Amino acid sequence: MSEKLTEQDRLELLEPLLSNGWEMVQGRDAITKTYKFANFAAAFGWMTSAAIWSEKWNHHPEWANVYNKVTVTLITHSVDGLSDLDIKLAQKMDQL
Amino acid sequence: MSEKLTEQDRLELLEPLLSNGWEMVQGRDAITKTYKFANFAAAFGWMTSAAIWSEKWNHHPEWANVYNKVTVTLITHSVDGLSDLDIKLAQKMDQL
Repeated sequence: MSEKLTEQDRLELLEPLLSNGWEMVQGRDAITKTYKFANFAAAFGWMTSAAIWSEKWNHHPEWANVYNKVTVTLITHSVDGLSDLDIKLAQKMDQL
Repeated sequence: MSEKLTEQDRLELLEPLLSNGWEMVQGRDAITKTYKFANFAAAFGWMTSAAIWSEKWNHHPEWANVYNKVTVTLITHSVDGLSDLDIKLAQKMDQL
């Protein structure tokens, strides 16, 4: 089972994401980021890679796509907040 | 160029969609539907098929996915409303 991020985790793991385009969602212990691509095919190609990692780790984003933009929100429903799974998936999404 | 649906088109082409789970979006000349699947892999697999048709027809949905659900909104931005492209893509999505 995943556990909610501790204060120490937030300093060490969450802060770097917040310095890299991720933001806290207002009123939720969740993070969000909007990625912009050259076109739809590039955006959906990225989503496909991210989807495979999501399924592999059994941790799925809330996400929306409009043409070349993808807005992702990450939260761990079982802990009603951020866990290490959100950090791992956010880092992977930034790498892809 | 696509043109906005006529009243006649709406009776003949839009009404069958509205009887099949599509709804008008409040305040926009657009249609929306939420599809539910067995799981994330099934939902994203369907999105992938729909994405290929979207790109082929150069007509892209606004859509959001949360685990096994996909909510789609269709509109033709160049006519600021519904065109035959939206009908064609909605019909294809229902078939997939």
